[in-house]
Amino acid sequence: MEGTDLQGVFTLKEFQDGISIKGFVENSRPKKGVIIGGGYIGVEMAESFRHAGMEVTVVEALPRIMAIMDEDLGGIVADELVRNKVNVITGKKVVALKGGSDVQGVTLEDGTSIDADCVLLSIGVAPNSNIAEEAGLTLGRRKAILVDRYLRTSDPGIYAAGDCATVYHRLLCDNVYIPLGLTANRQGKMCGENIIRDISNNTLIPFPGVIGTAVTKVFGLEVAKTGIGQAEIEQNLLRHISSAKIKAKTLPGYFPGSSEMWVKIFFEEHTGLIKGGQIVGGPGSGLRINTIVAAISSSMRLDELYALDAAYAPPFSPVWDPLLIAAREGMRRRV
Amino acid sequence: MEGTDLQGVFTLKEFQDGISIKGFVENSRPKKGVIIGGGYIGVEMAESFRHAGMEVTVVEALPRIMAIMDEDLGGIVADELVRNKVNVITGKKVVALKGGSDVQGVTLEDGTSIDADCVLLSIGVAPNSNIAEEAGLTLGRRKAILVDRYLRTSDPGIYAAGDCATVYHRLLCDNVYIPLGLTANRQGKMCGENIIRDISNNTLIPFPGVIGTAVTKVFGLEVAKTGIGQAEIEQNLLRHISSAKIKAKTLPGYFPGSSEMWVKIFFEEHTGLIKGGQIVGGPGSGLRINTIVAAISSSMRLDELYALDAAYAPPFSPVWDPLLIAAREGMRRRV
Repeated sequence: MEGTDLQGVFTLKEFQDGISIKGFVENSRPKKGVIIGGGYIGVEMAESFRHAGMEVTVVEALPRIMAIMDEDLGGIVADELVRNKVNVITGKKVVALKGGSDVQGVTLEDGTSIDADCVLLSIGVAPNSNIAEEAGLTLGRRKAILVDRYLRTSDPGIYAAGDCATVYHRLLCDNVYIPLGLTANRQGKMCGENIIRDISNNTLIPFPGVIGTAVTKVFGLEVAKTGIGQAEIEQNLLRHISSAKIKAKTLPGYFPGSSEMWVKIFFEEHTGLIKGGQIVGGPGSGLRINTIVAAISSSMRLDELYALDAAYAPPFSPVWDPLLIAAREGMRRRV
Repeated sequence: MEGTDLQGVFTLKEFQDGISIKGFVENSRPKKGVIIGGGYIGVEMAESFRHAGMEVTVVEALPRIMAIMDEDLGGIVADELVRNKVNVITGKKVVALKGGSDVQGVTLEDGTSIDADCVLLSIGVAPNSNIAEEAGLTLGRRKAILVDRYLRTSDPGIYAAGDCATVYHRLLCDNVYIPLGLTANRQGKMCGENIIRDISNNTLIPFPGVIGTAVTKVFGLEVAKTGIGQAEIEQNLLRHISSAKIKAKTLPGYFPGSSEMWVKIFFEEHTGLIKGGQIVGGPGSGLRINTIVAAISSSMRLDELYALDAAYAPPFSPVWDPLLIAAREGMRRRV
C-alpha cells in the first residue's frame, strides 16, 4: 500500500513502536486518528487514541470488527466503541494513505477518504520466518515455521518457538498460528528444555497445546474467548457443536458496580462436553474465562460446570455465577 | 452470655438485622464498635463499622481470626485489618456485655474490658433445626438436619434443604455443615425436583456436593478458599496432602492497579491431584478461585493446571497467571 512511510503512520509490534506513537501524540497533538484493522490491537488502540483526545475511526475490511468473537458478542463490542464516539467502518478496504511528508488521510476502496493526521496499521502479525524459509524449513499456517509437539522444525536438529512458529491447537488437533504472549513464553521455555534433553538423549516433553484463549479490554467492556466459536465452526466445517447464550449480571443487581455480562458456551451436542466459551461484560467478566479454559481442558460436561461449588459473595458474583447459568442454559438446549 | 439484650447489641442473620444495624448507626452515631467473632461476617462488618466512622475492635476466642484460612494467609488478612485501624484481639473470650439499658462495653475472660456503644455478635450460624429435632429426625454436624444425597432426612418421606441442613462434601466424603447461599439455593431447587420425582416414582437426582468454596472482601483484600486446607487436614488427620505457596502480582508489575497476590495450592503428594486452594490479594484475585474449583472438581493434576492456556492481557493478568505459577511451585515441591 502506498504512503506507509509518511510521517504519522505507525505499526505496533515492538516496544519501541509504542514509545514512538506516544512521542508523536505528545509532540504533534494529532486531532484525527484512523486505525486500519479492527482486531484486538485495533480496538485497544482506538481506546488509547480517544484518551489522547483524537477523533478516531476504525476501518475494518471484514464485514465486522473483532471477528475472533461471534457476531452477536462482537456486535456488543462495536456498540461500546460507538458509545465512546469511535467511528466504525466495516466491509471496506483502505487502498492508500495520502499526504505530502505528513499523512493527511486514508482512501477507501470505494473512493471515499477520511482525514487523518495519525494512522495506525493493525492488520495482523506476520511471523518473522524469512531465515527459516531461506534455510528450507517447512512453513505452516500463515507462513509460520511449522513445529511438531516438541518444538522441532522439519529439520529435527533445529527448534523454533514464539511468534515465528506454529502452535498445536488441542481442540482442532491441528497446527495453527496464534501469536500470543503466554504461548511464546511457554514455547521458549520448553524449547530450551527439549534441546537440552535432545542432546543428552533424554525423552522430550510435548508442548501441551493451546485452545485459543484470548482476552482484551475495550473501554468499559471486558472481552474474552476460548476454544471453539462460530469462526472455528465455520472454518473447520464442524457440525456437532452447539451453543447457548445468556445475559446476566457480574454482581447481584443491588450491589454497587453490578453490570451486564454475556456468556456464550459451546458444547458437543451428543456428549455435552464443553468446547468453547465467550464472555463480554463489565469489570470482573473477563478473567472468568479461565474457569471455562479449565472446564474444556479437563473434558468437563455442561452438567459438571453447572454443579461447580462456585464462589459466591455479593462483591464478586450473583448467587449463581453467570458461568453456571450459561451451563444450565446449555443443558436446557440439549434436552 | 449476659447483656445480649442491651440496646446497641446486634446479631446479623436476617435481612431485618442489617436494616436495624444501619438504623442504629445512623441515629445513635456510635463511636466505638466491638465485634465478637473474627470469621467472615466479623471481618466484613469490621470494615462496615470503620466506614461508619467507629473505632473498631474484633475479639476472637480462637488464637487467630479467619480460621477458615491457613495461618499464613489469615495473617495477611489480620494485617490488613490492623492497617485499616481495626484492633484485633485473639485468644480471648468475651464473657459479658456491660451496660444499663444501652451497651457500654464488653468484658473479656481475663477481666479486662473494652468500651463499646455498638456490639455485633458474629460467632457463627446455628441451624434452625428445632422442629426437626422435635419430630425425631436425625441431626448431623452442629445439630443440622442430616440429609442424604437426595436431600432426604432420616424419614424418607421428609426432605430438608438450606441453612438448616447438612451438605455433602465431595472431598471429605462426609456430611458437613457449611451454610452458604449457593448451596442453600441449589439444595432448595433440587429438593423440590426430587420431591416431585419421588411422588411420581422417578429416579432421584443426587446433590453434587460442595467442596467448601468461600470468598470475601476485607478492605482492599480479596480472600478466597476452596477444598482442603490446613484446617481440613488437621480436623481429618489427613497425611497425604501437601501444599505450595507463591506470591505474585494480579497484573504485570508495570500496569496501573497491579497488586500483590498470594496463592496456596493443596495437592495429593502421590498423584499430584489438586485438592484445595487459597487466595489472598488485591482486586481481581478472589474470583480466580473458581478456576481451582473447576480443577479440583474435574480431578486435575498440578501439571494440567500449569498447562492451561490461560488468558493473558496486561489489564487482566501477568503473562503467567498466578494460578499457573502456584501449580508450577507445587510440581517443584513434588520432585
